[in-house]
Amino acid sequence: MAKPIYILNGPNLNLLGAREPEIYGSQTLADIEKLSATRAQAGGFSAVFRQTNREGELVEWIHEAREKGSAVVINAAAYTHTSVALHDALKAVDLPVIEVHLSNIHRRESFRHHSFISAAADGVIVGLGAHGYELAVDAAIALAKSRTKAP
Amino acid sequence: MAKPIYILNGPNLNLLGAREPEIYGSQTLADIEKLSATRAQAGGFSAVFRQTNREGELVEWIHEAREKGSAVVINAAAYTHTSVALHDALKAVDLPVIEVHLSNIHRRESFRHHSFISAAADGVIVGLGAHGYELAVDAAIALAKSRTKAP
Amino acid sequence: MAKPIYILNGPNLNLLGAREPEIYGSQTLADIEKLSATRAQAGGFSAVFRQTNREGELVEWIHEAREKGSAVVINAAAYTHTSVALHDALKAVDLPVIEVHLSNIHRRESFRHHSFISAAADGVIVGLGAHGYELAVDAAIALAKSRTKAP
Amino acid sequence: MAKPIYILNGPNLNLLGAREPEIYGSQTLADIEKLSATRAQAGGFSAVFRQTNREGELVEWIHEAREKGSAVVINAAAYTHTSVALHDALKAVDLPVIEVHLSNIHRRESFRHHSFISAAADGVIVGLGAHGYELAVDAAIALAKSRTKAP
Amino acid sequence: MAKPIYILNGPNLNLLGAREPEIYGSQTLADIEKLSATRAQAGGFSAVFRQTNREGELVEWIHEAREKGSAVVINAAAYTHTSVALHDALKAVDLPVIEVHLSNIHRRESFRHHSFISAAADGVIVGLGAHGYELAVDAAIALAKSRTKAP
Amino acid sequence: MAKPIYILNGPNLNLLGAREPEIYGSQTLADIEKLSATRAQAGGFSAVFRQTNREGELVEWIHEAREKGSAVVINAAAYTHTSVALHDALKAVDLPVIEVHLSNIHRRESFRHHSFISAAADGVIVGLGAHGYELAVDAAIALAKSRTKAP
Amino acid sequence: MAKPIYILNGPNLNLLGAREPEIYGSQTLADIEKLSATRAQAGGFSAVFRQTNREGELVEWIHEAREKGSAVVINAAAYTHTSVALHDALKAVDLPVIEVHLSNIHRRESFRHHSFISAAADGVIVGLGAHGYELAVDAAIALAKSRTKAP
Amino acid sequence: MAKPIYILNGPNLNLLGAREPEIYGSQTLADIEKLSATRAQAGGFSAVFRQTNREGELVEWIHEAREKGSAVVINAAAYTHTSVALHDALKAVDLPVIEVHLSNIHRRESFRHHSFISAAADGVIVGLGAHGYELAVDAAIALAKSRTKAP
Amino acid sequence: MAKPIYILNGPNLNLLGAREPEIYGSQTLADIEKLSATRAQAGGFSAVFRQTNREGELVEWIHEAREKGSAVVINAAAYTHTSVALHDALKAVDLPVIEVHLSNIHRRESFRHHSFISAAADGVIVGLGAHGYELAVDAAIALAKSRTKAP
Amino acid sequence: MAKPIYILNGPNLNLLGAREPEIYGSQTLADIEKLSATRAQAGGFSAVFRQTNREGELVEWIHEAREKGSAVVINAAAYTHTSVALHDALKAVDLPVIEVHLSNIHRRESFRHHSFISAAADGVIVGLGAHGYELAVDAAIALAKSRTKAP
Amino acid sequence: MAKPIYILNGPNLNLLGAREPEIYGSQTLADIEKLSATRAQAGGFSAVFRQTNREGELVEWIHEAREKGSAVVINAAAYTHTSVALHDALKAVDLPVIEVHLSNIHRRESFRHHSFISAAADGVIVGLGAHGYELAVDAAIALAKSRTKAP
Amino acid sequence: MAKPIYILNGPNLNLLGAREPEIYGSQTLADIEKLSATRAQAGGFSAVFRQTNREGELVEWIHEAREKGSAVVINAAAYTHTSVALHDALKAVDLPVIEVHLSNIHRRESFRHHSFISAAADGVIVGLGAHGYELAVDAAIALAKSRTKAP
Repeated sequence: MAKPIYILNGPNLNLLGAREPEIYGSQTLADIEKLSATRAQAGGFSAVFRQTNREGELVEWIHEAREKGSAVVINAAAYTHTSVALHDALKAVDLPVIEVHLSNIHRRESFRHHSFISAAADGVIVGLGAHGYELAVDAAIALAKSRTKAP
Repeated sequence: MAKPIYILNGPNLNLLGAREPEIYGSQTLADIEKLSATRAQAGGFSAVFRQTNREGELVEWIHEAREKGSAVVINAAAYTHTSVALHDALKAVDLPVIEVHLSNIHRRESFRHHSFISAAADGVIVGLGAHGYELAVDAAIALAKSRTKAP
Repeated sequence: MAKPIYILNGPNLNLLGAREPEIYGSQTLADIEKLSATRAQAGGFSAVFRQTNREGELVEWIHEAREKGSAVVINAAAYTHTSVALHDALKAVDLPVIEVHLSNIHRRESFRHHSFISAAADGVIVGLGAHGYELAVDAAIALAKSRTKAP
Repeated sequence: MAKPIYILNGPNLNLLGAREPEIYGSQTLADIEKLSATRAQAGGFSAVFRQTNREGELVEWIHEAREKGSAVVINAAAYTHTSVALHDALKAVDLPVIEVHLSNIHRRESFRHHSFISAAADGVIVGLGAHGYELAVDAAIALAKSRTKAP
Repeated sequence: MAKPIYILNGPNLNLLGAREPEIYGSQTLADIEKLSATRAQAGGFSAVFRQTNREGELVEWIHEAREKGSAVVINAAAYTHTSVALHDALKAVDLPVIEVHLSNIHRRESFRHHSFISAAADGVIVGLGAHGYELAVDAAIALAKSRTKAP
Repeated sequence: MAKPIYILNGPNLNLLGAREPEIYGSQTLADIEKLSATRAQAGGFSAVFRQTNREGELVEWIHEAREKGSAVVINAAAYTHTSVALHDALKAVDLPVIEVHLSNIHRRESFRHHSFISAAADGVIVGLGAHGYELAVDAAIALAKSRTKAP
Repeated sequence: MAKPIYILNGPNLNLLGAREPEIYGSQTLADIEKLSATRAQAGGFSAVFRQTNREGELVEWIHEAREKGSAVVINAAAYTHTSVALHDALKAVDLPVIEVHLSNIHRRESFRHHSFISAAADGVIVGLGAHGYELAVDAAIALAKSRTKAP
Repeated sequence: MAKPIYILNGPNLNLLGAREPEIYGSQTLADIEKLSATRAQAGGFSAVFRQTNREGELVEWIHEAREKGSAVVINAAAYTHTSVALHDALKAVDLPVIEVHLSNIHRRESFRHHSFISAAADGVIVGLGAHGYELAVDAAIALAKSRTKAP
Repeated sequence: MAKPIYILNGPNLNLLGAREPEIYGSQTLADIEKLSATRAQAGGFSAVFRQTNREGELVEWIHEAREKGSAVVINAAAYTHTSVALHDALKAVDLPVIEVHLSNIHRRESFRHHSFISAAADGVIVGLGAHGYELAVDAAIALAKSRTKAP
Repeated sequence: MAKPIYILNGPNLNLLGAREPEIYGSQTLADIEKLSATRAQAGGFSAVFRQTNREGELVEWIHEAREKGSAVVINAAAYTHTSVALHDALKAVDLPVIEVHLSNIHRRESFRHHSFISAAADGVIVGLGAHGYELAVDAAIALAKSRTKAP
Repeated sequence: MAKPIYILNGPNLNLLGAREPEIYGSQTLADIEKLSATRAQAGGFSAVFRQTNREGELVEWIHEAREKGSAVVINAAAYTHTSVALHDALKAVDLPVIEVHLSNIHRRESFRHHSFISAAADGVIVGLGAHGYELAVDAAIALAKSRTKAP
Repeated sequence: MAKPIYILNGPNLNLLGAREPEIYGSQTLADIEKLSATRAQAGGFSAVFRQTNREGELVEWIHEAREKGSAVVINAAAYTHTSVALHDALKAVDLPVIEVHLSNIHRRESFRHHSFISAAADGVIVGLGAHGYELAVDAAIALAKSRTKAP
């Protein structure tokens, strides 16, 4: 059976739905988990869906995905902009990697315009809310199936 | 009947398939047009698919879409990084706008890391090749249906 | 008889009145054309009033004004901030050049703070809406009459 | 009766006519005062016309204009480029503010390209010599009459 | 008897209560003077409370405080961001120096993020409105009593 | 009964009193805890006082304070200068937030001059040693009582 | 028979001889065309010599040269400094590319010091006036004959 | 008996040998541990050798080394470039500190060129692979024996 | 009889001898006045020696020197680094201008490395304490005698 | 008889043919000397061809050329990017100066993008290998014959 | 017999022991030569140990080492930060290259933080005084023996 | 007898009088040598006056002055702006150091605004032509007599 899609979420995303809904929308992370799992199953994959506020734990989950997953979908939230550790972890992963952001980070503060994740990802999907996760899962599955990760 | 999705393509994309295939893939723009049209139809929309090497013509097509379209999907190619005129045209459009790029611009030269389009778009999809257009059409349709453009 | 004042308008200004009225006001370009023509006539000049979304066409109209005009009033809109070609065209013009902007570009995004037009213009009028065109025409006429272009 | 237009001039402008005439022209500040007063009267206003070399005095005159004036026309000269105090004073003024410069500051040293005044002004008129004051008075009066200060 | 605490206020603070109350609050400078004096007396000190719009006068009051005061509390307002002269004057003062700002300058325009005062002060209190003056007086008194100025 | 004031301390502050006393003073964190608790009680509040070397744990304590606290006083130490995650966590908190630093960070290395915390805080108190915590508690209580958090 | 050398000229070069002769010399573009054609014939090639003020047209002529030419000599004039579209078009050309400028752009304004063309060209010839075109044609022919384009 | 040398390793180093071997070599961290221990023993010291992906844990291990170690050898990996917390922890350590990197970080991406560790270390050894750890242990022992830490 | 040498001193120099003597030396401004006057007399000139803490007053003294002096020696102190107004005033002076600084500003904080005075002065003398004034007077006299001001 | 063309070569060019041939080609400096001499003779000039690794020696050869030469062709190699001394020496030369580089420096590391030579040269020829020297000699001769050095 | 290790020293290192001993230590260059030779012999190599104050001579010694040496150890001192010529010379050397510095350059002035040598070296050893030379010799020998130079 | 004053001159100064006289004046270096020697003798010192185009030779002359001189007067010309080696050599000199420049470098190209010499000198004299050498000799002698070199 196919290995699962790892969908990893970074700091403060546990507050989703409650925190600044005018930016992040009113759906909770549990809602997004459901949407993502459904989408993965439609593509013939299961999903591992997790959230943590700790950079080191994200690094370790990426290591785990490296062994046990088919692809990584990651919303690193605030760590997107500051974490070389995540960049390095993802560079070590020989699987499709899709970066996703709920809000359009390019319309926000300038410190959100640079991502350390992007240069280690295959694709990036930004600004489409919860629906962005569904598209990211689609993209991850398409790449996993073609087994071609961009060099 | 629903107004069409405008899918607009910028300079040099007419060479797709022939130009630097290690970066842009081997599919031609005609291939992508077909994929996009199919995807739009699956969502209940028709597609207007165009390419031009001229910045001013892109501006005018955006004006046209503003009147006659349901949404805009745009791959402004090189103009992404230099055109305030496209930024302004898209800001004047009260429709969903999805920016798409075939390659992962964040892995390339630094002058490709900034986009004047992003801050005028709802969503951005990067690095997923021709498949990215399909996801962009999906996203455009979803937004068009919910009639909610991010402020 | 005196050669006309050329009043040249750049990209997206055809949308005036409809596009972001909280920034650009509710008057249309046709309204501004009327105001400008009236003002020119009051000063004893006719006006050539044009708009284009194409940088190259603006360049060529400046070349035309060089032969057939008494002065140039230019609102290059978005090209203000990106066009060396317009800078060079205006430097080649041995006539009074007045730059005009409807909105106060210094209160907006930082990429609107620099103008390639200013260093090739005699005078600059910013932030006064349609009335700014009238003042620009006044200034152009005054300079044309004194036949003294700043070096 | 209408409150007067305050026309405030910054450091070294008392030397006008004598100082670097190739940049600033040969008219004196007294000449400009006369032109400005005449223009104001044509619009139905009186003018208060002053010059000082002291930043703090300019701040206080702006405070005075806030109580007793209809609009402010200001050529802050060198303080244009260095004074946050003037910026703050003008932000506190609920009247039309027009910034004016005799020379085209965009053609001069790079430290003259940024103005702390512009972001606190409604309009800016640059490079038109003494005539620029006349246009600034026109603009100030037009705005004062429409009682609409840009937000 | 103990020498007084000097509480010095910079440009435009005389407008307090009237100027941009959404940023600076509705209390007047007279209100703050009363709060500060009360707080100083509670700590066993009198207060000298002054405001000026002139950089040079602030410099001279600091020189005066150097001779006749126990400590300096200073809200240099706009001069905070531009005055090396105040920095130098405060460096020459062998007394406790507390910098205070009514609004949170770090949430405002980027030109307000740097302070020439901070590197010459012992402590900095920002964003707490009129209450910030009370805390600043407390801090100044505590330092004055311990007679230990940070090196 | 009133919810407690959360007083959160970041990395290396457990070494206080031992580490670089010429910068941070000779008081230990336990001393500061006592001072803070006393001050809180004087204002009618209890205090939750914690220290961690882990960014993620600080994020989670802020989430806890969001539910169970009246206000947050935070000395994020080194994370002040690098953590977008803390910025985001504090932005999601609808309570008074006071940032505090023992030393005057503006007199130290340039990488300590920028704080990601400040733009998410109501007030900032810098350079006043252990006494700064007391003032921060005062400020937090004053804001909590007025129930008005700056927008 | 050998395919021709394409010699492409950008905006404002149609004014050559008339525009700022102290910078660009007194020869007209027709003069340069003649010199270039003669030089090409001496090397056994014909020449296609064109000028346009439009960025998009230059892009398309490069595409044409890609099919029908032996080499490209390009003076992109103002677009040199702003056009990623020309950079991309030239990168897609598998022929020798020689960039040429009449004036020494390194002695002029700083915005003329960077060229988007250079990184997509094999060779660059600057500051030698009309004679530079002759050398560029020589270089293009030499490279076309050796059929070795630098990688 | 002498206290041990602490050899601390940062994020992703657990993947050594598997991750990007063209950059990091084919030796595993266990191999390096053995080499380091042998080297330490040759110098008369034992070694504590650890790896973690968590910044906070590295901070705490440095605190532990401060009490229980003779010297610190640290390869902070990705945290090298982003962690002020590690800088502060090392500054608080009154022992020899040697920074080590397997690859030559100066030949890689520009974000790897700055190290927050270097300014808190006595010595730095870069680019020598596993052998670099042996030299770092030698250096740490030499400094520990001379008991002279650079100020 | 020859017009006097104006020797103008900026903010905080009245504290000389008392303020930070390790930087500025132990001589008072009165000592320097005596040295300067003696030196001027030796060259056949009288000296006007003044100090002010006010930027505007310095501007006006320069205007006065323009009428009544033979040369200007100026130590603008803190205003050196921030005053465009002084730059402009000195540019308007058709007399020799010598800038002098007691301390070596190039060894101090980076904000003291740039001088707005230098580009408006003929000569600059830095770091030689009170003796620097004597040399500056010598230089001013030599230039005044040769009546050649550098262009 | 005509004075010779000086062809001066900077550091490491003695290794040509051996050093990084994928960048610099396989021809040796002796090969280039022969090509250059032949070309000079064809134009009626002799050639002085030299190489040194020493900046000072290059300066002195330029001084010599100033007296004894008709023109200078210079490939300053690494000193191109760091030597103000060469810039100054060439500015003092009243002869044609042509800068030449074997490789296309604009495609290489960013520290090779700026040249101190260019602003002191008449023309620049880049990226054309040994052939570039031949073109440079042609250009030098053409300029020497017309005796017009660009101002 | 094995070719020697070249140990090359740059400007001012002849003053070692006398010059700023608080930074560079009290050992002389002769002391370091002895330590290095001993270390090289222990590894089975001889050492060529030289010092010069001339950049060009360093370049030439590197060329010599290229022919006659087994490896290069280089302390380029001040030229480390300014010499592209040394960078290029070392890039042309197909031998192990170890950069060494006596002091920790990352703790000193910012102009010492960048090295043109590092990107052309295999390894870098910083801050370990004379002992650093011994480690550098060890590293050079280890690399020379394995005959593997990092690409 | 007193040791001599070393007066050291850098690259291209041998051309003085001939090179760009509008910048450097018409006096030759021999003229300046005579003026300087006379001035030194007046102060009771002899002078060693030298010029070289080689950075390394300047370094060595400074080393010589360190042993055999009373003070150093240095015009490093172009090396002023690029030489860390001269900075380091001068820092190692325990004698008065005066930097001198003939022209006012602050009025020239921006790359001449920074000096690596200034931070290693006691005093700096700029823009006073040959007379500046006389003042520099005076200053050197005064410092040498007081035997107090600034720290």
